Amino acid sequence: MSLKELKKVSVVGIGLLGASVTLAVSRGKMSIKTSGYGHRPKTRERARELSIASEIPDTLQECVKNAGMVILATPISIFERMFHELSDMLPEGCIVTDVGSTKTEPHRWAKKILRGKARYVGSHPIAGSEKRGVDYARDDLFFGAKCILTRNASTDADAFDTVWQFWESLGSRCIEMTPVEHDRIFAAVSHVPHVTAAALVNATDPKKIIYAGKGFIDTSRVASGPANIWMDILLSNSSNIAGGLNRVIRELEKIRDAVVQKDTDKIERELEKARKKRAELIEYKVSHKELF
Amino acid sequence: MSLKELKKVSVVGIGLLGASVTLAVSRGKMSIKTSGYGHRPKTRERARELSIASEIPDTLQECVKNAGMVILATPISIFERMFHELSDMLPEGCIVTDVGSTKTEPHRWAKKILRGKARYVGSHPIAGSEKRGVDYARDDLFFGAKCILTRNASTDADAFDTVWQFWESLGSRCIEMTPVEHDRIFAAVSHVPHVTAAALVNATDPKKIIYAGKGFIDTSRVASGPANIWMDILLSNSSNIAGGLNRVIRELEKIRDAVVQKDTDKIERELEKARKKRAELIEYKVSHKELF
Repeated sequence: MSLKELKKVSVVGIGLLGASVTLAVSRGKMSIKTSGYGHRPKTRERARELSIASEIPDTLQECVKNAGMVILATPISIFERMFHELSDMLPEGCIVTDVGSTKTEPHRWAKKILRGKARYVGSHPIAGSEKRGVDYARDDLFFGAKCILTRNASTDADAFDTVWQFWESLGSRCIEMTPVEHDRIFAAVSHVPHVTAAALVNATDPKKIIYAGKGFIDTSRVASGPANIWMDILLSNSSNIAGGLNRVIRELEKIRDAVVQKDTDKIERELEKARKKRAELIEYKVSHKELF
Repeated sequence: MSLKELKKVSVVGIGLLGASVTLAVSRGKMSIKTSGYGHRPKTRERARELSIASEIPDTLQECVKNAGMVILATPISIFERMFHELSDMLPEGCIVTDVGSTKTEPHRWAKKILRGKARYVGSHPIAGSEKRGVDYARDDLFFGAKCILTRNASTDADAFDTVWQFWESLGSRCIEMTPVEHDRIFAAVSHVPHVTAAALVNATDPKKIIYAGKGFIDTSRVASGPANIWMDILLSNSSNIAGGLNRVIRELEKIRDAVVQKDTDKIERELEKARKKRAELIEYKVSHKELF
């Protein structure tokens, strides 16, 4: 199935990410019908007020009826249950993907539950916000963003290509990885920084924190992400994250020891290493038009 | 001496901060003459091209001649040497202040070296950038920023008031602290976050780092600060910083252990604690017009 044959996309979970998908599809004027479902009546009501999709039905069944593609945009912790619920509702050949931040477990659940019933492809659009909820949805959220698509040996090639075309049509640049690669990389660049930001905030004396400047505000920004969603991420990528946190702890100990010993050379070497590495990162990002 | 009687301000060290001071004074049209000195001929040349001060003399002596106030804007590591150099050059009653990020050591050096020769007050404008150099100087850098002024029992009250008026005239909001209080607070909200950002960058696999998104970029931003200046800061506030790093390490270990043990409640509790604490911080900052 090519993108042109896709008549209806159903999004399950209409928070910031899910609702941004339906809005982005509408913006694209691709004449794809969008259907959004949230389990809370209040969310559905608000989604209707904001017209975030062609339809906001009251049941999951109605939402996924005749869907060519179903996108899970719920917390990862309920993916397994959602796959079970969906498994008997989905039209034949239906593509299932998601927007979750870890990919190994979703692939495992999909293989176990959806095999022979739907074609699962993993998606992880690198877009979002520390904000949450349908009110913050934006039709340009995926524009210019990377989207990691994951597949393994049991992934349907045609479904993979359709999902690829879908995200690219929303302005994203797709990148292919295996689920294992994905989870290792995002432990390093996303999950571990999140925990580090949270640990920094928790370590800071409440009486002193009000003197925080722009540096602290930026360093801690991601710690404002929703705790339940991040808990899911940490649980579903635990060994990579634990390994990454150990590396951060070791680097902190290294600088702490140098500070205690007043080891000028070592302190400067460590700080300069970080400065240079980040400068190279920024240069890479700018030259690849990922940062302006 | 009130601000009205201040005829000449001399800034020693004309990088981002120092040159922003002279530019801000000119902007204020207070008819205060500004003089800027940098030890490198190239810096002085560039400073002249950019007209950052009324004069950019070739010698330190010329720069501080007839100055009512001298502001040190060099790295902290050379403050002690600069106090020695300046001690016999300064006009009687001259006020000396600085823009350094730690305050206990500068007060100690000033007491030892400048006593009876000049009146030292500590200043720490909470403004700056990870950029450096005269080219990044801005005449509005201190506008709307906090400026911490430090004094202890031996600080001249009149000099303190003049320095206070000076920073307020540049648009800063002054706050008084003792040097010890200052260094404890800024270890927590500035120095420890800096080291944490650097440790995070150093802990990240170079092959993975290119996948960093906005979260990593923000979390690590302060690590791009100049290594030599930060080394100075870490050395001159070492025990507070070592203590703060230990607290961050303990918080990281707490979350790491909860992740390894898949302790859902504990993970969510820690993340939620950080989220809530940061939300309160942002609320405080917005309500105090420190963040918009």
